[in-house]
Amino acid sequence: SWANADSALSEQTLNATQELKKHAMVSQHPWNILESLTTEVGPRLPGTEGDVRAVQWAMDKFKQLGFSKVYKEPVKVPYWYRGSAHASVVAPFPQPLTITALGNSVAADVTAQIIRFDNLDALIQADAAQVKGKIVFIDHKMERYRDGRGYGPVVKARGKGAVEAAKKGAVAMLLRSVGTDSHRFAHTGVMRYVDYVDAIPAAALSNPDADQITRMLSRGEKVEVNVKLTSENRGEATSYNVIAEIPGSDLANEVVIIGAHLDSWDEGTGALDDGAGVAIVTGAAKHILERGLTPRRTIRVVLFAAEEIGLVGAKAYRDAHKDTLDSIYIAAEADFGAGPIYQFNTRVNESALDSMEIIAKQLESLGVKLGNNASWGGPDVSILPALGVPVAGLSMDGTDYFDYHHTADDTLDKVDPDALRQSSAVYTLYAWMMANLDEELRPIPLPKQ
Amino acid sequence: SWANADSALSEQTLNATQELKKHAMVSQHPWNILESLTTEVGPRLPGTEGDVRAVQWAMDKFKQLGFSKVYKEPVKVPYWYRGSAHASVVAPFPQPLTITALGNSVAADVTAQIIRFDNLDALIQADAAQVKGKIVFIDHKMERYRDGRGYGPVVKARGKGAVEAAKKGAVAMLLRSVGTDSHRFAHTGVMRYVDYVDAIPAAALSNPDADQITRMLSRGEKVEVNVKLTSENRGEATSYNVIAEIPGSDLANEVVIIGAHLDSWDEGTGALDDGAGVAIVTGAAKHILERGLTPRRTIRVVLFAAEEIGLVGAKAYRDAHKDTLDSIYIAAEADFGAGPIYQFNTRVNESALDSMEIIAKQLESLGVKLGNNASWGGPDVSILPALGVPVAGLSMDGTDYFDYHHTADDTLDKVDPDALRQSSAVYTLYAWMMANLDEELRPIPLPKQ
Ligand SMILES: [Zn+2]
Ligand SMILES: [Zn+2]
Ligand SMILES: [Zn+2]
Ligand SMILES: [Zn+2]
Repeated sequence: SWANADSALSEQTLNATQELKKHAMVSQHPWNILESLTTEVGPRLPGTEGDVRAVQWAMDKFKQLGFSKVYKEPVKVPYWYRGSAHASVVAPFPQPLTITALGNSVAADVTAQIIRFDNLDALIQADAAQVKGKIVFIDHKMERYRDGRGYGPVVKARGKGAVEAAKKGAVAMLLRSVGTDSHRFAHTGVMRYVDYVDAIPAAALSNPDADQITRMLSRGEKVEVNVKLTSENRGEATSYNVIAEIPGSDLANEVVIIGAHLDSWDEGTGALDDGAGVAIVTGAAKHILERGLTPRRTIRVVLFAAEEIGLVGAKAYRDAHKDTLDSIYIAAEADFGAGPIYQFNTRVNESALDSMEIIAKQLESLGVKLGNNASWGGPDVSILPALGVPVAGLSMDGTDYFDYHHTADDTLDKVDPDALRQSSAVYTLYAWMMANLDEELRPIPLPKQ
Repeated sequence: SWANADSALSEQTLNATQELKKHAMVSQHPWNILESLTTEVGPRLPGTEGDVRAVQWAMDKFKQLGFSKVYKEPVKVPYWYRGSAHASVVAPFPQPLTITALGNSVAADVTAQIIRFDNLDALIQADAAQVKGKIVFIDHKMERYRDGRGYGPVVKARGKGAVEAAKKGAVAMLLRSVGTDSHRFAHTGVMRYVDYVDAIPAAALSNPDADQITRMLSRGEKVEVNVKLTSENRGEATSYNVIAEIPGSDLANEVVIIGAHLDSWDEGTGALDDGAGVAIVTGAAKHILERGLTPRRTIRVVLFAAEEIGLVGAKAYRDAHKDTLDSIYIAAEADFGAGPIYQFNTRVNESALDSMEIIAKQLESLGVKLGNNASWGGPDVSILPALGVPVAGLSMDGTDYFDYHHTADDTLDKVDPDALRQSSAVYTLYAWMMANLDEELRPIPLPKQ
C-alpha cells in the first residue's frame, strides 16, 4: 500500500507539514485564544448576554488573527434561564446539599421522601406505587476511562430520568452527577421532557452529596429532602455559528471542516468544554495562515452555536447547507477537553485507508496512533455521516475531563498548556494534509444506527 | 539517659502499649465516629441548630462508647449568620465570581472598582487616596507545605484585611482564598473588626476567581465588581465543651487532656476540620477503654466549642478551670486534618526530655519521630502554656489540608481511612503513656510571646 504514498501527499505538502509541526509545537496561539475567550467572555450559555458576547468575540478574534473570510450564520436557540438551585435534607439529619439544575428543568419547591435507584433501568423496572409522590434519586456512578466511555451508560439517566420518574408519579428527580470527581460540584447538562408526561424538576447532586444521601439511606430511615429551583424556559433567542476560512486553490470548492462549539454551560467559564476546542481548531488554522501556506481545499473553522442544549447550531448548519453537503470533503470536531490527542480515527471509504495511514504516519511523532474507521467525528459533526459526509475523530485523553465537565470548576487553570499545544499541532497537520490529499473519501461506510 | 527508661514507664505499661498498638491499628472506631458525625450532624457552626445537634451527638456518642463520666460545660458564643454571598464582574467582562463571606462580616451590596495588592503589607503601605471608595483585593497566594507553614503569612490578611482597607476608605475587602487548591471553592474563616474603624464587608474569592481578576487587571483596564452579602451578627447563643473521661487510679487527680474542636464551618461537613480530630481523640480513649486498661492519671477527652470563631470554648474552659489548671499534667489537640502523624513535639521541663525520648521510641514503629520542645499543642490548648501547662503536639501531615480547609468541599470522602487510623493509634499510645509516665513535666520553658 505504501506505493500510494507519493501520489496521496506531494513532497511539497510533506515538507510544509514538517514546517508546520515545528511551528505549531512552539506556538502560543492556542493558549492565548483560550485565555482570551475564558477571561473576556467567560460563561456563554445560549440565549444569554455571554453568548452574544462570545459571538462578537469570535468574529473579532478571527479578524484579528488575519482570516480573510469571516462570517456568521444565525441559529434560533431556546433560552433556558438557570436561576438559583438549593436543596437540603429536611429529615432525619437536616443539612444543605450541593445541587445544580439540569438544563431545561422547570422550577421547583418540593419536599418529599427520597427513593433511590442504582440506575435508570432500575427506575424503569420499579413499581409505580413505590415511586409516587417521592423524589427519585438515581445513584449511578460514572467510571473513569481515557476515552470517556464511562459517560454513555450514565448520561442517559440525565436525559431521560425525569420523564421516567414522572411516569411513575415522582415529584422530582435528583441525579448523582455525571462526573468522575469527588468534589462538591454538581455537574449540569441538558435533560428532556416529552409532551405526554408531566414535567417534573430535575437536578444533579455533587458526588459527595450523593454519597451522603446514600449513607443516610443505609441507616434504614426515611430521608426527606427539599428542592428549590427557579429555572424557567424563556422562549427563543438568536445565536450564530461563527466561521472563518482559509480559501483553497485548485480544489477551493471542497471544504475541510474543523469545528468546536462556542457555547458553554454557565457555571464555569467553559475552558475545557469547549474553549479548548475553539482554541485548538482556531489555532490550527492560524498556524497554516501564519506560515503563508495555501491549501488546495478550503479549510473552514466552524464554531458551532448551542451544542450544549442539543446540537442546535450543528442542525442549523446542516439545514442551511443541505444542498451543498457534498462539498464537505471531511469534517472533525474538537470537543473533549485540552488533550493530548492520542489516536486518529476516520469514517471514509475503505479504499482511502492507505491514505489515512500516510496521514497517520505524519502524526506519529506527535504521539498519535492510527485508530479505526468507525468514527463519528465529534458531537456537532456526528449528524453528518448519515448524510454521506466523511468524518475524522482525533481522540483526546479524557481521563480527567469528567472531573470538571459541566461544573463551575471548568476554568482556565484546569488546562495543561502543553497538551493544548500538542492538540492544536495535531489539528494543524491534520487539516493541512486533508486539504491537500489526493484521494477520494466517498462513499463512506454506512453508519449503523 | 537510657538509664531512666525503666523507671519512667513500667514494664506493665510498655506491654499494654504494645497491645494497644495492635488493637488501634485495626480499629474501625475513628472512621465510624467520623462517619457518624459528618453524616448525622453535618455542618455545625456555633449558634446554629447544627451546633446544638453536635453537642447532643457528642454526649450520646461518648455514652454509647461506654465512657463512665460524660459531661458538658456551657460556653457563650456569638452567632454569626452567613446568609448568601454573590459577586460578579460588572465591567469590563461581566461574569459571576465564586466568593464566600468571611466569618463575622457585615452585609454588603456594593459596586466599585477593584484595587489589587500583593499582600497585607502592601495595603498597609498604600496611599489612602488610591484606595478610597474602592474594593480592596488582597491577592496573596498560599504556599503548600507538609507542616502548613504557608498559612500564617497569608491568614493575617483574612483577619485584618478589612480593617486595614477600611482605614483607607475602601468599601469592601476581597481576599484570595487562604487555600492551596485550584478549585472553585472560596475558603471562609474568621475576620475581625475594631471599634474605631468602619466595618466593611469581607469575603474570599476562590483561587481560580482571584486568577481571573488578576488576568483582567493585567489588561490595564478598570475592573468593577459587585459584592452582595446578607450576613449578620445575631447576638449570643449557648454552646458546650463536651467532655468524657477515663478515671485514673493512684494519680486520678492529674489529667491528660486530648482535645479537638466539635464546631465546624458551615459550608462543608467539617470532616477534616475538625471531625477527624474528634474521631482521633475519641477513638484513642475508646481503644484504652475497650482494652479494659486503667491509667494512673485521668484521661480527659475535651471536644471544644466554637474554636473557629476565636477559641471561644477553649477560653471558657480555661476560665472555668482557672483554679485547677495545675491538675493538667499535659494537653494536646488534634486539629490539622486526618494525618498521618509524623512528629512528636512537646513543651515540658528540659529534665523530662529523656522521658519524652522513651515515649517517642514507642511511637517510632508508627512512623513518628521525636521533634522539638517548642510546641504550642494545637489551637485550643495553645492558650495553656502561658499559664504553665505542659503541652504536646503530634504533627499531622498537612500537605493537602488547605486544599479543603474551610470550604464546602471538606467532606468525608477527603479523609484517608488509613491515615485517620494511624493518627488515632498514635494518640492512643501517647495518651496511655502520658497517663502512666513517672516524670515531672513542670515547670515548662516560658513561651516567647
Ligand atoms: Zn462540549
Ligand atoms: Zn458539554
Ligand atoms: Zn480546626
Ligand atoms: Zn478551622
